Amino acid sequence: MSEYEALGQQLRSFLAGLLGAGEAPSAPSPRPGRRNGSAPAATDWGPRIELAGLDDLYDGTEVQAYTVPDGGIDNLALSSTDTFEIPGRGEFRMDFSGYFRVARAEPETKNWAQANVFVNLADMKLTGSHNELGTVNVRLNENVVSPGQTFAPGDRSAPAACRIGAAVEFELEDQGMTVFNKEPILLMNDAIEAIPPVEDPNGMARLYRLPLFDTRNPDGMPVAYLNRLQYTVGNYVTVAQAEAFRAI
Amino acid sequence: MSEYEALGQQLRSFLAGLLGAGEAPSAPSPRPGRRNGSAPAATDWGPRIELAGLDDLYDGTEVQAYTVPDGGIDNLALSSTDTFEIPGRGEFRMDFSGYFRVARAEPETKNWAQANVFVNLADMKLTGSHNELGTVNVRLNENVVSPGQTFAPGDRSAPAACRIGAAVEFELEDQGMTVFNKEPILLMNDAIEAIPPVEDPNGMARLYRLPLFDTRNPDGMPVAYLNRLQYTVGNYVTVAQAEAFRAI
Repeated sequence: MSEYEALGQQLRSFLAGLLGAGEAPSAPSPRPGRRNGSAPAATDWGPRIELAGLDDLYDGTEVQAYTVPDGGIDNLALSSTDTFEIPGRGEFRMDFSGYFRVARAEPETKNWAQANVFVNLADMKLTGSHNELGTVNVRLNENVVSPGQTFAPGDRSAPAACRIGAAVEFELEDQGMTVFNKEPILLMNDAIEAIPPVEDPNGMARLYRLPLFDTRNPDGMPVAYLNRLQYTVGNYVTVAQAEAFRAI
Repeated sequence: MSEYEALGQQLRSFLAGLLGAGEAPSAPSPRPGRRNGSAPAATDWGPRIELAGLDDLYDGTEVQAYTVPDGGIDNLALSSTDTFEIPGRGEFRMDFSGYFRVARAEPETKNWAQANVFVNLADMKLTGSHNELGTVNVRLNENVVSPGQTFAPGDRSAPAACRIGAAVEFELEDQGMTVFNKEPILLMNDAIEAIPPVEDPNGMARLYRLPLFDTRNPDGMPVAYLNRLQYTVGNYVTVAQAEAFRAI
């Protein structure tokens, strides 16, 4: 850092102090009679996973049933069938295919029966087309954490459950509109036999008429709804496939 | 405003300008090839209803089936049965009773077939007790918008669907812990015959092992889960009843 930069930083810090802009937000003061304080504004839907130190995993990675793998970032094929509702226009059912990239934190235990494995979506790219709506591209909303986890099954030979709250955008290319969700699209599977659940067609979104908002008017009223979604996790993709999907 | 106050405001504004603190956040720059910009960080789960101009409604308010009422704020009895999971301790099923206060925006149309009526939770107070967990109080998380709506049924004699994404805190008084949700507790009913749906026992939460976080460690890992919830909307409460519930 140059002397000028250092001086600039000091001045900035001093001025920020004057303005109160540099203060840490104070804890909300508990209401009278409240023992444990009050719930904060939820900025994220769940914990953020640190990607540093996790390796990307591609085609060739071995998956073993009822086994807890080391942390890593899974690059997996993904397909889904989504049903949208656009008020005044009706329902639209579409098939999508592409990939997603799931960051798995290091597990606290390697014991399948006891392991809760926490994840974040690190990327998602899907594309589909519909004879009326045209091409639709799905991309992860990188401005929101998409958190998830597997749940300890309690038994070494029992399947685990998993959930991920996904924040995405749907670009309706030919409609000139991109919509996004403000409540998580809750992807879940109540019986996975491996982590990750490769070649598993039993993923569902647990949701109800999930509102979608126009990115050009994000604080406005919903412009569409996601009514149903089922998904299939495929297998690990190759580096080249992942790169091709990332360009969507 | 005194001269000193005005001067202070100008100075503050000038300094904020120097620091960039007074600038409106710039729109995220679209990625190359992206037509419609990208989805923003979702600060709220949905649109905020303006309470000003809406009257509180209590016992004595008439509810008519298949009729769209004027905007207002419903003060209604509410009961629920919730099942929590605390890792390492098991599942706990509890009955709660109390009230909620639901702000209904003025409808865009009075035609039942065509009306989407938008709502926010304006208050919620429930209490319950469990022989092992002790007393648990449920309160609305006022730092988050809890948005919802009814859906136009398309027919004058068809029931409507409704959804509300609730942000609450559960104060486990005797455990010395308060937990809250970062993903909405999605209260829904797919067939309501009146707005509001008084004396309707068919409310459910559509969720899956919804993570709950400790208010003392809001950015930490989940400490409990909400596994199931069903609810019954009762009738309008009296002013005195609402005041008693508010003290919970």
